[in-house]
Amino acid sequence: MRIEAVDFFYLAMPQVEDKGDGSQDALLVRVQAGGYTGWGECEASPLVCIANWCCPLSHSACKPVRDSVLGETCDSPADIERITQTVRANGLDIAQTDHTLSGIEIALWDLLGKRYEVPVYELLGVKHAYPKRPYASVLFGDTLAQTFDAAQNITRRGFRAAKFGWGPYGRGSVAADRDQIAAARDGLGPDTVLLIDAGTVWVDDVDAARLRLPALKEFGVTWLEEPFVGGALDAHKALAADALPVRLAGGEGAHNAYMAKHLIDHGGIGFIQIDTGRIGGIGTAKAVVDYATARGVTYVNHTFTTHLALSASLQPYVGIRAAEICEYPADPSLLAENLTLEKLTISSDGLVRVPEAPGLGVMPYLETLRQYLVDVHIEVGGKTLYQTPDITAS
Amino acid sequence: MRIEAVDFFYLAMPQVEDKGDGSQDALLVRVQAGGYTGWGECEASPLVCIANWCCPLSHSACKPVRDSVLGETCDSPADIERITQTVRANGLDIAQTDHTLSGIEIALWDLLGKRYEVPVYELLGVKHAYPKRPYASVLFGDTLAQTFDAAQNITRRGFRAAKFGWGPYGRGSVAADRDQIAAARDGLGPDTVLLIDAGTVWVDDVDAARLRLPALKEFGVTWLEEPFVGGALDAHKALAADALPVRLAGGEGAHNAYMAKHLIDHGGIGFIQIDTGRIGGIGTAKAVVDYATARGVTYVNHTFTTHLALSASLQPYVGIRAAEICEYPADPSLLAENLTLEKLTISSDGLVRVPEAPGLGVMPYLETLRQYLVDVHIEVGGKTLYQTPDITAS
Repeated sequence: MRIEAVDFFYLAMPQVEDKGDGSQDALLVRVQAGGYTGWGECEASPLVCIANWCCPLSHSACKPVRDSVLGETCDSPADIERITQTVRANGLDIAQTDHTLSGIEIALWDLLGKRYEVPVYELLGVKHAYPKRPYASVLFGDTLAQTFDAAQNITRRGFRAAKFGWGPYGRGSVAADRDQIAAARDGLGPDTVLLIDAGTVWVDDVDAARLRLPALKEFGVTWLEEPFVGGALDAHKALAADALPVRLAGGEGAHNAYMAKHLIDHGGIGFIQIDTGRIGGIGTAKAVVDYATARGVTYVNHTFTTHLALSASLQPYVGIRAAEICEYPADPSLLAENLTLEKLTISSDGLVRVPEAPGLGVMPYLETLRQYLVDVHIEVGGKTLYQTPDITAS
Repeated sequence: MRIEAVDFFYLAMPQVEDKGDGSQDALLVRVQAGGYTGWGECEASPLVCIANWCCPLSHSACKPVRDSVLGETCDSPADIERITQTVRANGLDIAQTDHTLSGIEIALWDLLGKRYEVPVYELLGVKHAYPKRPYASVLFGDTLAQTFDAAQNITRRGFRAAKFGWGPYGRGSVAADRDQIAAARDGLGPDTVLLIDAGTVWVDDVDAARLRLPALKEFGVTWLEEPFVGGALDAHKALAADALPVRLAGGEGAHNAYMAKHLIDHGGIGFIQIDTGRIGGIGTAKAVVDYATARGVTYVNHTFTTHLALSASLQPYVGIRAAEICEYPADPSLLAENLTLEKLTISSDGLVRVPEAPGLGVMPYLETLRQYLVDVHIEVGGKTLYQTPDITAS
């Protein structure tokens, strides 16, 4: 099949607020080849990725992603790998390239799965898809009461694991941070797994992070996520030793497999969290799954938004039974909630399964797209390089 | 001073060719504050950076660079550091952020230098600016004769060091690569320093790179640059041991200090090459200078384009006498050649010095800007987010 068309759809809530909720907008990618249509998502700034798709050539290692994708043949996983390598070599000097690639690569897997009528994980060579235990992923409340209520709500909905992050955590006093964790634990009760996400708030300040360890231990927190930015390997390593039995988690910012491997090899993390919508897609994520598993580090998806993104994030590691936990968007925006009609629902056994359907097994819902679509128009040197296409023209 | 305006000017040659010449376009940044004007350059895709400057908010860690810069106070190096940290925290989830930041940060140093009437290096705390020995940086020829001629031309121009890179190198046979290096050495003569740039051609394939080592040793090559992509730390480390006395060089792709430190700590490189137009600017580059110098790794600038970029790239390490070599654009495009009237010329002693003038000591030449300016217009949701400003309106 020849890749005939790639289209980007920028979707956004009418009001996007300055908070840690990444589900307020989305960049949906549609790929068409051989009469099939595949869908993917970039977990990234929509406008920057669209510019990266269509930007003029700067030099041989600074090309628009478009030049490495349109017209290419795609009949097999090996073709997706080849396209991935070409995009990366031709986009070496554009830092955004991996983010832009991600949604396209995911859509190519979806498209191949539809053509061969198998779920994506089968194309990855996985024989059996194990269910995952979902953890509800939510933001800390601005007040302790809000955090407590959110925790109780999670428990009522049947979740057996929950993650609290961002909001005020790490920005005030050590005592205030302890109170937030106490409120979350109170609301969840003693038996629910509690995870904490610091959202890189200490950048690379080990001392600031170390002050928070006693509270994490006191309330039985399983992991501390992103105490630092991903590049701060030494800081991770130093904190990891003192944090036990709490493990460090990180990796959502990785935009290639190397960055994830560095955290595993030199950062001392216990959980590697990958967003297929950032790391370059499903194939790159699968490489990290294999690398982490061989080294005793537990792979976890990073998914805070839609069920299309959730399916794409689960496919690479559904074959790893021991990696049993998965992030599950528990409080997404209306846009993210309604992006697909199909959902990866939580079964009566409390577990989540990837769809046993071709490709990703979930499709964008056209009505949602129409409602939230944001028009983009880019002109360079008087020539139109991008104009959002008609959503119905497929 | 309050940052009142930041403007981006996308400049390009009338024809941009698919070759390894990064000087075919430029993204110039103008910052205005307190009645002063500073200039910088992003060594990056112009359209992608402009989109990153003006993109709509996605969430609290995915903001346009604009939101972290306009209206900020800038009276000291500490203010530049604060703005840098804010841009990075607010742009955590936009991979392009460091590239876009770079040109702005450089312009802020230029502006501060003009206000305090000192060269930028003095603002960095450097007491004495040592001259540098320039190496001519050129592409391999498509034929051996072209490479030989280029080498002879470099010698005639008085350079005592030269770097050949990209073009066919690494893409054909091991014998063909040896012939290219032989041609370069023949043209240069035995006494000129010869450096080779593989331009990441082997990605992370250590065996492919290892096959080229005998020729590098045979012709007395000082460094092998970028055999692999920057993230491939293990590959660097493995090759570094076998390459001696040839040293590995790399780092031009680093877009924060961590990436450079990883190459130093885990990649076994002998030379760390930093482009201030990519790594986040002069302040971040200076942090790498200090880190590398303390660990016996030699810092070198990466500059293939303009003399504005050259001045910005030299400032962070003019205080390090032992880091005596510098990259010097020997064959830039007409656009890059003419971007500034002032040049960092090579003195009769064969050395290059940073200007003893306020700021960067070089200014864009308005006639060049007018001739090569490319108009950019970006609309999102019916609202104009970017329109190239009038170049004369300053």
